[in-house]
Amino acid sequence: MPREISAFSNPLVKRIQSLRQKRHRREEGLFLAEGLRILTEARENGRIPEYLFFSKEGASHPLVRTLVFDVEDSGGQAIQTNAEILSKLSGKDNPQAVVGVFTEFPSALSVLDRTSADIWLVAERLRDPGNLGTILRTGDAVGAGALILIGESVDPFSVEAVRASMGALFTVPVVQAEWSDFLPWLRSGPGQLVGLSLDTDTDYRAAKYTSPAFLLTGNEAQGMPAEYAAECDMLVKIPMLGKADSLNAAVATAVMAYEVLAQHRG
Amino acid sequence: MPREISAFSNPLVKRIQSLRQKRHRREEGLFLAEGLRILTEARENGRIPEYLFFSKEGASHPLVRTLVFDVEDSGGQAIQTNAEILSKLSGKDNPQAVVGVFTEFPSALSVLDRTSADIWLVAERLRDPGNLGTILRTGDAVGAGALILIGESVDPFSVEAVRASMGALFTVPVVQAEWSDFLPWLRSGPGQLVGLSLDTDTDYRAAKYTSPAFLLTGNEAQGMPAEYAAECDMLVKIPMLGKADSLNAAVATAVMAYEVLAQHRG
Repeated sequence: MPREISAFSNPLVKRIQSLRQKRHRREEGLFLAEGLRILTEARENGRIPEYLFFSKEGASHPLVRTLVFDVEDSGGQAIQTNAEILSKLSGKDNPQAVVGVFTEFPSALSVLDRTSADIWLVAERLRDPGNLGTILRTGDAVGAGALILIGESVDPFSVEAVRASMGALFTVPVVQAEWSDFLPWLRSGPGQLVGLSLDTDTDYRAAKYTSPAFLLTGNEAQGMPAEYAAECDMLVKIPMLGKADSLNAAVATAVMAYEVLAQHRG
Repeated sequence: MPREISAFSNPLVKRIQSLRQKRHRREEGLFLAEGLRILTEARENGRIPEYLFFSKEGASHPLVRTLVFDVEDSGGQAIQTNAEILSKLSGKDNPQAVVGVFTEFPSALSVLDRTSADIWLVAERLRDPGNLGTILRTGDAVGAGALILIGESVDPFSVEAVRASMGALFTVPVVQAEWSDFLPWLRSGPGQLVGLSLDTDTDYRAAKYTSPAFLLTGNEAQGMPAEYAAECDMLVKIPMLGKADSLNAAVATAVMAYEVLAQHRG
């Protein structure tokens, strides 16, 4: 039976709201995801929230009822609350009907099976949570084995990244690793490391990709360090005809990934 | 000679800050752009701000000096100020060194020369300013003739859209039009209307694009209305192997645009 919370001063509400900050997420090992679409995606991938907040209006929706049942069935707490509290939890004026609190599920290089996918996405010092979420969606769409985040990256469990991923956080494994760990792991088995770069004459469409291909994109502002580029089996560039700045990092990743997908599919 | 403003209560500061709201932008016909990179891009494309705010520290940068000179030379105002005011103007804790205030420059279908480019981007009810800016960057990169916004769209002159465009707002013309005006204009000359859709079997790589190609992407959440799809010369789909939601709208636009570019370049 769902409990009801209507006071913003409630300690659980304050605690959950604090998960909007990275420090608290790390302390608690929990993160926030909002919206029926994302929570349903999570459920279909076997992730049930520890806490589920929903409004009285939301409670009539069959998908919300299913979520409430699953949360209680798995020992979590379903909490009926009001629009004001949902708004505080999600940080949006126009709150989603549901907010879920999940246990973080970071992955590790050691558990990845590189034979399980043709494409693996690798992003170096990714800074923008929207880009991270968008790259996860692309990863889902091209059937990527994982998104591997190299170096100091934006938190994949941040509210903005989860939101931008539209649920792909629950379908594509995310690994955080240092370059010094990633490189030996990569070289311990098959894998073509392809770096996206401006310092090459190889057009991304002319290059030949093998499987598994690890597609490395550098930091949004600086690109990747020269020593990382030097380790790549191949550098490729995407032509840019324009006058302004280079492509958005998530866009460049997707353009490259779709070329690799097309080649793999023949 | 630049004037100096250090009080946040200064009426000009309050007026400029109000440009963060769409209503004030429309009233004044002005918008905000921030950062040396974007302002330099603007300058190289012949757009000089009406007002230029910069910090004392910023004043020593040669590019800032060039901007100050150009602004004063063209009858605008260069204003030295402090980090706090720059922060209020840009809405960022860590403000950029410069904030510019530009006259809006909306374009119109009637001034577009469809023979001037092979690719034209058309977005229907685009809602996310980050997507709009990202699509403009892609437009710049593929040499698009313009971005045509159909129906009720996010404001291309919003702070977030300008920021995400990384300067491409100044290099790619943006037109806002109703579908009922766009379609007769399109049909008054050559042009292949290509709609990105999930309701087709035509893979975007198997399709044959002609020039000029008008690439239509629908609303982020709903896609395009059936009556718009019915007017397309061709519908194409991007394969999605995954379990989560479809691709981000800006990513899908880019994947399609780069395929068209590759075909046009042979």
